[in-house]
Amino acid sequence: MATSEPRATGGDQDPNSANLRPPSTTYEYAWMHGCTRKLGMKICGFLQKNNSLEEKGRLAGHKSFLACDNSDRDARFRRTETDFSNLFARDLLPAKNGEDPTMQFLLEVVDILTNYIKKTFDRSTKVLDFHHPHQLLEGMEGFNLELSDQPESLEQILVDCRDTLKYGVRTGHPRFFNQLSSGLDIIGLAGEWLTSTANTNMFTYEIAPVFVLMEQLTLKKMREMIGWPSGEGDGLFSPGGAISNMYSVMIARYKYFPEVKTKGMSAAPRLVLFTSEHSHYSIKKAGAALGFGTENVILLSTDERGRVIPADLEAKIIDAKQKGYVPLFVNATAGSTVYGAFDPISEIADICEKYNLWLHVDGAWGGGLLMSRKHRHKLNGIERANSVTWNPHKMMGVPLQCSAILVREKGILAGCNSMCAGYLFQPDKQYDVTYDTGDKAIQCGRHVDIFKFWLMWKAKGTVGFEQHIDKCLDLSQYLYNKIKNREGYEMVFDGVPQHTNVCFWYIPPSMRGMPDSEERREKLHRVAPKIKAMMMESGTTMVGYQPQGNKVNFFRMVISNPAVTQSDIDFLVDEIERLGHDL
Amino acid sequence: MATSEPRATGGDQDPNSANLRPPSTTYEYAWMHGCTRKLGMKICGFLQKNNSLEEKGRLAGHKSFLACDNSDRDARFRRTETDFSNLFARDLLPAKNGEDPTMQFLLEVVDILTNYIKKTFDRSTKVLDFHHPHQLLEGMEGFNLELSDQPESLEQILVDCRDTLKYGVRTGHPRFFNQLSSGLDIIGLAGEWLTSTANTNMFTYEIAPVFVLMEQLTLKKMREMIGWPSGEGDGLFSPGGAISNMYSVMIARYKYFPEVKTKGMSAAPRLVLFTSEHSHYSIKKAGAALGFGTENVILLSTDERGRVIPADLEAKIIDAKQKGYVPLFVNATAGSTVYGAFDPISEIADICEKYNLWLHVDGAWGGGLLMSRKHRHKLNGIERANSVTWNPHKMMGVPLQCSAILVREKGILAGCNSMCAGYLFQPDKQYDVTYDTGDKAIQCGRHVDIFKFWLMWKAKGTVGFEQHIDKCLDLSQYLYNKIKNREGYEMVFDGVPQHTNVCFWYIPPSMRGMPDSEERREKLHRVAPKIKAMMMESGTTMVGYQPQGNKVNFFRMVISNPAVTQSDIDFLVDEIERLGHDL
Repeated sequence: MATSEPRATGGDQDPNSANLRPPSTTYEYAWMHGCTRKLGMKICGFLQKNNSLEEKGRLAGHKSFLACDNSDRDARFRRTETDFSNLFARDLLPAKNGEDPTMQFLLEVVDILTNYIKKTFDRSTKVLDFHHPHQLLEGMEGFNLELSDQPESLEQILVDCRDTLKYGVRTGHPRFFNQLSSGLDIIGLAGEWLTSTANTNMFTYEIAPVFVLMEQLTLKKMREMIGWPSGEGDGLFSPGGAISNMYSVMIARYKYFPEVKTKGMSAAPRLVLFTSEHSHYSIKKAGAALGFGTENVILLSTDERGRVIPADLEAKIIDAKQKGYVPLFVNATAGSTVYGAFDPISEIADICEKYNLWLHVDGAWGGGLLMSRKHRHKLNGIERANSVTWNPHKMMGVPLQCSAILVREKGILAGCNSMCAGYLFQPDKQYDVTYDTGDKAIQCGRHVDIFKFWLMWKAKGTVGFEQHIDKCLDLSQYLYNKIKNREGYEMVFDGVPQHTNVCFWYIPPSMRGMPDSEERREKLHRVAPKIKAMMMESGTTMVGYQPQGNKVNFFRMVISNPAVTQSDIDFLVDEIERLGHDL
Repeated sequence: MATSEPRATGGDQDPNSANLRPPSTTYEYAWMHGCTRKLGMKICGFLQKNNSLEEKGRLAGHKSFLACDNSDRDARFRRTETDFSNLFARDLLPAKNGEDPTMQFLLEVVDILTNYIKKTFDRSTKVLDFHHPHQLLEGMEGFNLELSDQPESLEQILVDCRDTLKYGVRTGHPRFFNQLSSGLDIIGLAGEWLTSTANTNMFTYEIAPVFVLMEQLTLKKMREMIGWPSGEGDGLFSPGGAISNMYSVMIARYKYFPEVKTKGMSAAPRLVLFTSEHSHYSIKKAGAALGFGTENVILLSTDERGRVIPADLEAKIIDAKQKGYVPLFVNATAGSTVYGAFDPISEIADICEKYNLWLHVDGAWGGGLLMSRKHRHKLNGIERANSVTWNPHKMMGVPLQCSAILVREKGILAGCNSMCAGYLFQPDKQYDVTYDTGDKAIQCGRHVDIFKFWLMWKAKGTVGFEQHIDKCLDLSQYLYNKIKNREGYEMVFDGVPQHTNVCFWYIPPSMRGMPDSEERREKLHRVAPKIKAMMMESGTTMVGYQPQGNKVNFFRMVISNPAVTQSDIDFLVDEIERLGHDL
């Protein structure tokens, strides 16, 4: 399926369409440009219907006519219109005379993106325009996902860009609460655009001098906030919290049993890892991947708020030792995924010290609170950790992906992972090769995740992150206060949330007063999925739900998007009640 | 160190500066805009020198004066100038009235990026402007990498963006040959800009419907090109070839010893992996990380071209079995990092079949040749592999990162990695949850690496990739023919290169005719690093070097950038001779 004829996008009538180009008083230039294109596309569409390639060819020669037509509106902005239907990727740079079409094409893409950005922040826009997989696969009004042998025109490529955004989910929308990562930070976005333009790799100073130094300085700053003396230590940005957590297990093993690197797990006794039953599943995944086995990842009991009970940790350590196993590693979660719980790090650190265990703090979600003077006490004791995971792409609103693994002991990352590949990390370079960080990683190539974060930190300052975090936590408390005694709501756990997680059941009127029973539990279990499905179909908002332990499906509200206001919280509550009223 | 006063960039006099804004006949709008800003900055600079905040304040009020001054040149493009020195991140969206400054800021960033792109393709621009780490850390003429508590103005943020590009390396420059990944594909770049604007995550269809389907279709297409029946099988995009290779080892282990997932490596006998001594170090890294131990990664001997000798593989399998070890996995490299060698996959597959071993093909670098009818025979037998690594971000010019792990057996990725986290992968959603791919991955969040690749494939077609690959291989042959008998060159191995890798020593005149001796070897070992250092200091070109086995440092030329022409190859040869002549 190959064609150079643009397929029309079906979005023009959709109020959610990223395709609409409303007149903008500020960007007349962009607007006129958009209008001209749309007119051209309509004519193209007409010709397509008439199946006349000859006529289409003539149209290309008459683009100046379109431009002229446009000039009636505002002579100042008249310019030659680019006919993307006769342009292909091969006409762009590095092609001869490719500079002009390249710039026109990129500006057109930017026009699509800036329109999308404006709509993302516009509450009258839907969060998503839901379609089932089979619908998208069958092809939506000209949006064909299949790849072909022959090239498509740039006109079609631009249509595909618009459609990709149209059928996606606006994770930056003020009413998108579905994930720990949400929001669309403009500085971070600019940072990502620059990062992809620079298109380089973190493994050596040689090809990423500025980014390597930015990473080094930023990691040091993060270690200072953790409270390690002078910010000393080590670290890396990794492709997400799961990989960061995996690093922590690897280096703990290397610290206590370095011979595993060369001889494998058979060189070590039966090692066990401890983590809360509320902790992220990546600790178990790491246990499976690294050869410990999930049975040797021992789950710790928590209190009703989802926080590890230190006595349970100690009892399980003693039990494991009695069985002849060797306790190695404890993960304390700072901000659990569902409840937003902070394990008592100090008490856990005491136990780790007593039994000489590696203490890792998974602050993927809660690490951001270190930026807040008001809330950082929730992580008290983190300065005693041996390693910390901290994802700026969650609570701090940095675009995906941005996760750091931070390590207190310098050099251990390299010790654990280096293989000294001569073709990449030559010792005889003209600069100080200790800046070549690649051999510390389990990756070879490593994406530049630092720049957007560095730029955001420059632009906001530490105080900017602090204000953002304090605001999000205030909003959560607002939600908590609003629903804790409201008719039709039950809280999953009592008390003010520690993080922005607010967990609750919505009880439809038909179920209120129903006595607790298996029937009620089963019914309640189906409420959140039903409401969520309706939310997605109507596209008005998105919030997550899940069961946890013996608790049936409940909503988990989280806030990390700076665009959220109290009115959006009110909207969510109204929407849940509207959709759930008749269940 | 916090200030809202813009620090002037030092790049104005530098011909390499991304900061210069030469008049562009095409983009008068952008040009005028740039000029105005520069004039504004110069005045700001003057006021800073005079230390008068009051005067600076008055200037802000007189921005209209600057705009007026500008209008003399071309009244049509007069517009109100944005004063970024008084704007901060907090003034951008979602701030009230933030739309206007947001669009102005993003357009300004795009202006910086498009200028950078133009210069990247301009051969009169340097590849890099080299500085030592300590120089950049000390601060280059206003470019301060340190983070502060207080926010910087957007003016400063824009200066930082320019400086970041100025002191970086132009990996898209036609004379950057340093890495397997090079070039700056405009469609891929547009794809990345869109990806970061969409800012979502691959783990569920729920929040990445379009991207999840694109990944599925593209992986299927790749499996078809590998030659698996009907393109059936499984796969994922992962954060680079090293992680993709790690996946292959994990799933091989799961296939033969599924109980390792729960019980750890102690549930399996002593397992051994086989890979060539020329293979990528990530196989060893995987061996270390996953608990096999590097000693259980057995290196295979190669012929003089760096290709595995199948008889050596069989002998080592037999040897391992005799020692009581259990052979598990063989990695065949399709395009080795240094020599570009293709292991004989068919013969290796015969042996794997005979001994019932998992066959992985690491086609991170060479996989792209599957797109070429002329060159795909080098991967004959790949259809017999159990898994394949293939990095479109290398030979196919897709922006970093874009790496696929492809698996012949459906369902095994999920079997190996799933932990069934209820809070993320709810079975009771309204859509077909088999599209939720997250639990197949060792990651939780997963960056969207597919869109840029999908868009490039749409825009170029399979034929476009084929032409690119054929052209790069032709250019390598051109280089090979040019230097194979040229005075002052010695080839590291004989014969036409299998991939674009051309490996050679340059022998300076002072060493020619010198008999082979330890002294000559030591001297020659220092030649490539010296030439490379001078290249980087002069910024004219970049090419890699390394030792390999008992071979002293030699140059490894690779070509994957579509911007490269014969004239660039000629330039490299001339440059090596110019810089190396007097060594």
